[in-house]
Amino acid sequence: MARSQEQETEPQTATTTPPPQQARGTLGVGMVGYAFMGAAHSQGWRTAGHVFDLPVRPALAAICGRDRAAVDAAAARHGWAAAETDWRALIARDDVQLIDICTPGDSHAEIAIAALEAGKHVLCEKPLANTVAEAEAMVRAAEAAQSRGQVAMVGFNYRKVPAITFARQLIADGRLGALRHVRASYLQDWLVDPASPLTWRLKREHAGSGALGDLGAHIVDLAQYLAGELLTGVSAVSETFVRERPLLSGASAGLSGGADAVARGEVTVDDAAIFSGRLASGALASFEATRMAAGRKNALRLEINGELGSLAFDLERLNELSFHDHTEPAATAGFRRILVTEPEHPYLEAWWPPGHALGYEHTFVHQARDVVRTIAEGLPPRPSFADGLQVQRVLAAVEESAAKNSVHTPVPSS
Amino acid sequence: MARSQEQETEPQTATTTPPPQQARGTLGVGMVGYAFMGAAHSQGWRTAGHVFDLPVRPALAAICGRDRAAVDAAAARHGWAAAETDWRALIARDDVQLIDICTPGDSHAEIAIAALEAGKHVLCEKPLANTVAEAEAMVRAAEAAQSRGQVAMVGFNYRKVPAITFARQLIADGRLGALRHVRASYLQDWLVDPASPLTWRLKREHAGSGALGDLGAHIVDLAQYLAGELLTGVSAVSETFVRERPLLSGASAGLSGGADAVARGEVTVDDAAIFSGRLASGALASFEATRMAAGRKNALRLEINGELGSLAFDLERLNELSFHDHTEPAATAGFRRILVTEPEHPYLEAWWPPGHALGYEHTFVHQARDVVRTIAEGLPPRPSFADGLQVQRVLAAVEESAAKNSVHTPVPSS
Amino acid sequence: MARSQEQETEPQTATTTPPPQQARGTLGVGMVGYAFMGAAHSQGWRTAGHVFDLPVRPALAAICGRDRAAVDAAAARHGWAAAETDWRALIARDDVQLIDICTPGDSHAEIAIAALEAGKHVLCEKPLANTVAEAEAMVRAAEAAQSRGQVAMVGFNYRKVPAITFARQLIADGRLGALRHVRASYLQDWLVDPASPLTWRLKREHAGSGALGDLGAHIVDLAQYLAGELLTGVSAVSETFVRERPLLSGASAGLSGGADAVARGEVTVDDAAIFSGRLASGALASFEATRMAAGRKNALRLEINGELGSLAFDLERLNELSFHDHTEPAATAGFRRILVTEPEHPYLEAWWPPGHALGYEHTFVHQARDVVRTIAEGLPPRPSFADGLQVQRVLAAVEESAAKNSVHTPVPSS
Amino acid sequence: MARSQEQETEPQTATTTPPPQQARGTLGVGMVGYAFMGAAHSQGWRTAGHVFDLPVRPALAAICGRDRAAVDAAAARHGWAAAETDWRALIARDDVQLIDICTPGDSHAEIAIAALEAGKHVLCEKPLANTVAEAEAMVRAAEAAQSRGQVAMVGFNYRKVPAITFARQLIADGRLGALRHVRASYLQDWLVDPASPLTWRLKREHAGSGALGDLGAHIVDLAQYLAGELLTGVSAVSETFVRERPLLSGASAGLSGGADAVARGEVTVDDAAIFSGRLASGALASFEATRMAAGRKNALRLEINGELGSLAFDLERLNELSFHDHTEPAATAGFRRILVTEPEHPYLEAWWPPGHALGYEHTFVHQARDVVRTIAEGLPPRPSFADGLQVQRVLAAVEESAAKNSVHTPVPSS
Repeated sequence: MARSQEQETEPQTATTTPPPQQARGTLGVGMVGYAFMGAAHSQGWRTAGHVFDLPVRPALAAICGRDRAAVDAAAARHGWAAAETDWRALIARDDVQLIDICTPGDSHAEIAIAALEAGKHVLCEKPLANTVAEAEAMVRAAEAAQSRGQVAMVGFNYRKVPAITFARQLIADGRLGALRHVRASYLQDWLVDPASPLTWRLKREHAGSGALGDLGAHIVDLAQYLAGELLTGVSAVSETFVRERPLLSGASAGLSGGADAVARGEVTVDDAAIFSGRLASGALASFEATRMAAGRKNALRLEINGELGSLAFDLERLNELSFHDHTEPAATAGFRRILVTEPEHPYLEAWWPPGHALGYEHTFVHQARDVVRTIAEGLPPRPSFADGLQVQRVLAAVEESAAKNSVHTPVPSS
Repeated sequence: MARSQEQETEPQTATTTPPPQQARGTLGVGMVGYAFMGAAHSQGWRTAGHVFDLPVRPALAAICGRDRAAVDAAAARHGWAAAETDWRALIARDDVQLIDICTPGDSHAEIAIAALEAGKHVLCEKPLANTVAEAEAMVRAAEAAQSRGQVAMVGFNYRKVPAITFARQLIADGRLGALRHVRASYLQDWLVDPASPLTWRLKREHAGSGALGDLGAHIVDLAQYLAGELLTGVSAVSETFVRERPLLSGASAGLSGGADAVARGEVTVDDAAIFSGRLASGALASFEATRMAAGRKNALRLEINGELGSLAFDLERLNELSFHDHTEPAATAGFRRILVTEPEHPYLEAWWPPGHALGYEHTFVHQARDVVRTIAEGLPPRPSFADGLQVQRVLAAVEESAAKNSVHTPVPSS
Repeated sequence: MARSQEQETEPQTATTTPPPQQARGTLGVGMVGYAFMGAAHSQGWRTAGHVFDLPVRPALAAICGRDRAAVDAAAARHGWAAAETDWRALIARDDVQLIDICTPGDSHAEIAIAALEAGKHVLCEKPLANTVAEAEAMVRAAEAAQSRGQVAMVGFNYRKVPAITFARQLIADGRLGALRHVRASYLQDWLVDPASPLTWRLKREHAGSGALGDLGAHIVDLAQYLAGELLTGVSAVSETFVRERPLLSGASAGLSGGADAVARGEVTVDDAAIFSGRLASGALASFEATRMAAGRKNALRLEINGELGSLAFDLERLNELSFHDHTEPAATAGFRRILVTEPEHPYLEAWWPPGHALGYEHTFVHQARDVVRTIAEGLPPRPSFADGLQVQRVLAAVEESAAKNSVHTPVPSS
Repeated sequence: MARSQEQETEPQTATTTPPPQQARGTLGVGMVGYAFMGAAHSQGWRTAGHVFDLPVRPALAAICGRDRAAVDAAAARHGWAAAETDWRALIARDDVQLIDICTPGDSHAEIAIAALEAGKHVLCEKPLANTVAEAEAMVRAAEAAQSRGQVAMVGFNYRKVPAITFARQLIADGRLGALRHVRASYLQDWLVDPASPLTWRLKREHAGSGALGDLGAHIVDLAQYLAGELLTGVSAVSETFVRERPLLSGASAGLSGGADAVARGEVTVDDAAIFSGRLASGALASFEATRMAAGRKNALRLEINGELGSLAFDLERLNELSFHDHTEPAATAGFRRILVTEPEHPYLEAWWPPGHALGYEHTFVHQARDVVRTIAEGLPPRPSFADGLQVQRVLAAVEESAAKNSVHTPVPSS
């Protein structure tokens, strides 16, 4: 057991193992950031090529973080071949063809634009940016790069939940008819406790916004993706229920006063945002994003009602899709619980037999598959930076409406 | 089998059946209207005295409707001792002490005020009235009558679902702590079909409003009842998706053109209304009322999140209450499915063993019990006409906001 | 409020209320027993004629119990016109045409046979009897009476849950194809606590058996009713987990020794029974009846799998039926949650709009309707005493198998 | 993109990436078989070291299958460094320390014993063997090997679902008190269609048994694992509903007669098995395993009732555990839906934030972690070959009982 993993995973001899897929080549990935999203993306990149039949295989070329010891540990833990401490060095690597951006929103624009200008493909976590202006600059860079054959995509990974992708297919096939309602909420509870500390996610300068950008961005994207149409305007309220929170322990070092005198700082983002909107077709949409719903851990819930049927989904039961076919006889109609684990379902051709559940991280495997195929096969990027910009415009309109007594605020068209 | 039911239910002889509860006397009820609500109220009045130990027993004295044959048939069907065709005659009857108003909203004020002025107790279906002005006049009449010992109550029957009453107890006991969110929706689907006809419920002059007054009134009342506090302002959108509908068959008699040329009329109320609001404590509330949610039959859903816990309820499963106690250790915490059928639960002392479900109509039995006890024991009326007026003010603010680009609109305090 | 209820429910004057249904006549009911079942049956008899359009109306003629004060109170509470203390006197009454037997099982045979011999119709609570021999005698009496135009039915009220009746229709229509599995359990928890007292239900001489006769009888009947075929044999185990329990307080009066020395008696029936069986078609069936399933209050659960589809039901959510149509494309197939509240559903033509839940007691209203219609329209009695006997034979075979090391034990055919 | 993945995952240079975990060494895995289980195990071995902090990292040294082209493709697809066509050669490899057996049951004993005798650790898929005699020989080999420091484990992967592991903790902590009932079923539907072909899983000589060994083995193991005690005897029925099925297409080559004359072969295993049993403590257990439950895809369901509480689980919603605490006040008691995704839950310290679902394949990651830790830290193997033998004895007793008219059949103690 003295040999390293890297050695172990080499072919023993050329004669016993001619790896047939090797000839397909690889896509070298360089990832910036290695916290929660970094771990999840790593799992996606590591796994996609072993499950899906891909034209090229992603290779975990290099990971990047500012702290040398920490990034080295992350590289070893997550299976990255190299580690960098400067994202510009990461972009410069010859073995990296794709930059995967998993940092807080305030650095997205700078890194993404630099990477695109350096000729790299880009996958950028959501929200695309902290401001519309940044997002617009990113879209311009992406459009310029696209003409050079580069791909830029945004990480709305929940589009890649098979139940969601399948829901989109049903709607696109007309199974719901004319849409009347989109109902979307994303409820979490990790800020219910007022003693929960003041992390970067609670500061506007880093996170852009609170529940709105973190959770609301997902449901705005999903609503528009599923409906196949855009929001034209919104009316919103938002609230910060707990306005001061304890500083993280490191930040209070050296303070006098003992345990009772915990230093506190101001929360500068929203805890919750509620908004309604209209879709282009006239359907009504309602949204709620909050981190203060005690007992709701990851309750991203969607319901869409149309003239011919309805769909419902809950991320806490992500292998299921509820479908009501309103054209059935009333006596036998009802919401069906579809287990989205059949080989006919999106992404399922490569996984397990029916009824064998997938999990959260599979969205990142599917995202990796889609990014690779988009690059290798010249497909249109979905979701694109333009999609990310559109979501950003909705979020900006939400904030504007909330600041203006909830007055209906149009979302500019691109 | 020649004897009438009325004769059969008399005591056979004084010696075999000295009815011990007879001495308690009765409360003569006179009911106006005998459609859906009339049938439901009849079931409540017929049953309450046989299930609950009441100080007086309700007696179904007389029912009132404009059509003689129809009202006679309704009296026989529902067990009313007499029938009237003029509500003023009903009020004038000596054997009637309580007027129960089950008519469309445009007649509530006139009947209720006349009944109160005639010295009768009043139970009035919701919404209390079609306008705030009418509701204010009704409250004035109720206050004057209260000083004479009369009771005036409004039929927000869903407060009488045991799970709802119990939810109120848990909140009042502080089990949820400071409230953060109230999430309320009431989804039905009986207008999804554009061929559904133009009934009185779709005309503003009779119904006041559409889904807003019919469904929204319930969830506004429940939100305020459960939270124990009032809405201070709202922001709203509403929509009429199907703007013309076929006239009822009778109305199109004599039209030429055959089956294809069905006469159509304009829908003058909303199909759906979505609004958000703030409660006095600062908690956020969201509301949605619609008749266009395919597959949702009677989905009145509530969720309330507080600092210490959460509650959830769905009227389609009305014997259940979901309760999350956020003070439990995280590893064993979760929403509990409480079957609200234990003898400790509200109203359940008189019903069946644990696990034996109650239904929709039991809310009217409980309402009848509460009305009788309020009258006989001099309790404060709950819900009162003032409660009905407050809901009416919220509905008016919703309509005003929807007409003014969703701008936040205060709800006047009483 | 001085007039009695009975007077109030008389017509005020002939001119104001000519009751059109009065001419239809009534069916005088005499009920023996007034505990839980007596209250439930009373509610059924009181309500059926006000909800359904019946050829004759049930009249609550007389109730019977041994204790004069208690039976008088029950008469007043539940709305019975008279009270008797001797069931033979009840049978002898001219105003009674139907005897409704709600007593413990050890008295069923004697009362039912006497009533049938006296020319009365009979409705008898389940289980039909405590022994097969008693049940056989009852069937003989019923057959003799049937030739005289009398009806004898057994109170398997759960057949009257609309979801169950509808499930039977779907199966009879062939929607499940050839049956493979019937899975039935009835779980309660009121004996989990070893301090729960030794009631008559725990003594073999009164109750016949324990969970088996009380709960198992229901699921055996439902399995055979739904499948439309009979069990041919069974294999069983049963258990009494708590073999001694405290005597009821009255029984321990006068004992010395204080609170710790509670007198205890032996439990002589089963706490739980588990058995499997084969249906005539070769389908497998499994059954479990227990009063020791902590947290399950009234969990009568059924699942039936066939070659073309499946059905599932849970009495704790009795307004719902789950239906899987296996002929649908796999990608959109799944168990549908049918809310059995549409006007097309059995019994629902007379109740509320879609989505408005019914409860446990409605099974007794439906039973009353079916008994009345069976008598008035000369329909075959369903469920009949013969059906009750067949269930009794299954229960006897279960006990025999449990006593013989679980060996497969045939159920004799009638 | 010309470099192989294997090369890409090497450190770029020693200076940029000193991999800190490399020094820990690796555990070389050699896997036999590469169908469904092979793919799942591969995912487990590939992932465990990147997620959990392991003392040594598993290395995918070599995969083995009889067909050279197929096994080479599998090696490339699943990330194995080498491929063998003879399992004896696999065992002989120096870079292999653990043999992972994913073949049909008829080859388990021979491979496992050879591997143990060659000094290798063994992980063997369930059921441990096709006969008790084989399993006994395997246990003897494992005991001999254990004295040499080798580990032998059986792949009851569902013990590694976090909700199941946590359920075991709750029961071991006494939260359910004395157990009364274990209720276990495993329902699938892939044999409902009579046109489904005759695979090796339907032939006794390869599979040992049908639903019993495939599905029943899991629920027998889980029942005993969760209860912490063994079954002492069983009573069983089993059935093969479809006794002939089409041969696989390859097998019918050359047959005359056209499409209608599909060659058919006999099914020699059970489609379904139902059995009851007693646990050592006297608790009753019921089991059902079937491949004929239309609409049930992977419905492994467990419910355990004790004197102080109950637990329920459904593999189709594997992130959830239902827990009823019977010591709570009745009014607020109920089954809690625990999302088993908190950091306090088993295995969850290494995964995602609360509410982010895991899937089926994570059981194999957890199994890999446990195997590695058992080997590296000298822990007792759980589940051991002895556990596998005990399950085999239960399955044999089930078959014996089913063959002997369901008579209660003791399970021999080891």
